[in-house]
Amino acid sequence: EIAAALHPARPLDGARVLLTAGPTREPLDPVRYLGNRSSGRMGYALAEALTALGARVTLVSGPTALTPPPLEQVVQVETALQMHAEVIARAAACELFVATAAVADYRPVAPAETKIKKEHAALEIRLERNPDILAEVAAHRPAPFTVGFAAETERVEHYARGKLVDKGLDMIAANRVGGPRGGFEREENALTVLWSDGQRELPMMAKPRLARALAELIAERYLEHHAPSS
Amino acid sequence: EIAAALHPARPLDGARVLLTAGPTREPLDPVRYLGNRSSGRMGYALAEALTALGARVTLVSGPTALTPPPLEQVVQVETALQMHAEVIARAAACELFVATAAVADYRPVAPAETKIKKEHAALEIRLERNPDILAEVAAHRPAPFTVGFAAETERVEHYARGKLVDKGLDMIAANRVGGPRGGFEREENALTVLWSDGQRELPMMAKPRLARALAELIAERYLEHHAPSS
Repeated sequence: EIAAALHPARPLDGARVLLTAGPTREPLDPVRYLGNRSSGRMGYALAEALTALGARVTLVSGPTALTPPPLEQVVQVETALQMHAEVIARAAACELFVATAAVADYRPVAPAETKIKKEHAALEIRLERNPDILAEVAAHRPAPFTVGFAAETERVEHYARGKLVDKGLDMIAANRVGGPRGGFEREENALTVLWSDGQRELPMMAKPRLARALAELIAERYLEHHAPSS
Repeated sequence: EIAAALHPARPLDGARVLLTAGPTREPLDPVRYLGNRSSGRMGYALAEALTALGARVTLVSGPTALTPPPLEQVVQVETALQMHAEVIARAAACELFVATAAVADYRPVAPAETKIKKEHAALEIRLERNPDILAEVAAHRPAPFTVGFAAETERVEHYARGKLVDKGLDMIAANRVGGPRGGFEREENALTVLWSDGQRELPMMAKPRLARALAELIAERYLEHHAPSS
């Protein structure tokens, strides 16, 4: 009975989850943009897996080629600034915030209003920092249970542990990208999941299965976090 | 009989067509890239429509979310330099070259080998020109019958007529992008098709139908071009 209470079939029953997914696009002009290789697949699969555990998921998604699963709400955005606005407007009303989106760190300072002509042999684009959505939500008081993602090409665990501490996250899921077994644009992936006093390896598997394993781990840590301390 | 000979059901029977489609992606680092909003839809539809007119179509495609129709050959590329190499290798063996791809005019000078960290409040990206694939093919002797595309945000016909002349094309299909009725990322489109001594308007319609109308116009101009002058 105790085991059943600790591991119910719907451990996140009714919990409101705000989840970001996909890349963002930062316009240079009406046709060109700065993008990244996130397909959104892991985020969409995780939104579905969290819903299966009973959560009410609101998805804020950058541009992807995917059809969203049936969720509480789906909000489509394009830029980091748009994603920031939609997330901040909803952050106070969620118990969990799961940031799978690959938000552009930088945006062009002044997007051109008409298509840039190719008159010059060289061109310089000036970029400025976008807001850090994840750090901002984690710094909110009261903060939701925050889960971040780290996609790194090198020293994956080192950078991920740094991000967990610096941004004050509750959990971070890290993966290697850019290599032959990297995470973006692929059907399968592996994750190292870290929290303040522990970590777990989720080995290489298909993204939907990996998403279910991660959703269960998120639920486990979230319930632990909210359990009255003994 | 003359009409039937001038307008056979398969006017391009056996003609070898080399067709580019989609955007290109120019890497900044292993996860970030410079991209554009071409979906590839118009190019893929045109490849299919030209095949229906009897042509043997080789498609060189940048990254899209589309499944290619059954064609003679499909070559997937990512960058403008890759598209350039694949096209130049095949240009001498085609009778028609149709360039629908939105090839990036510029690429980052030196893509980073590992993910750029967001240490700085601002960043500058230096870009250099990519080769002009279309102009290069049109300048080849003997040149195939070359059809270009122009996607413009303003003065559409002016820029398209300039491109036709400057690059020595046989035809150019121009459309307005970036506006509410613009061509990228939409299911329908309109084209203004120009050649040295004429032009035709193809009004707003679904892209597959527009592609069939354009394919017929290409066949008409191509056969006219190859007909013995009277």
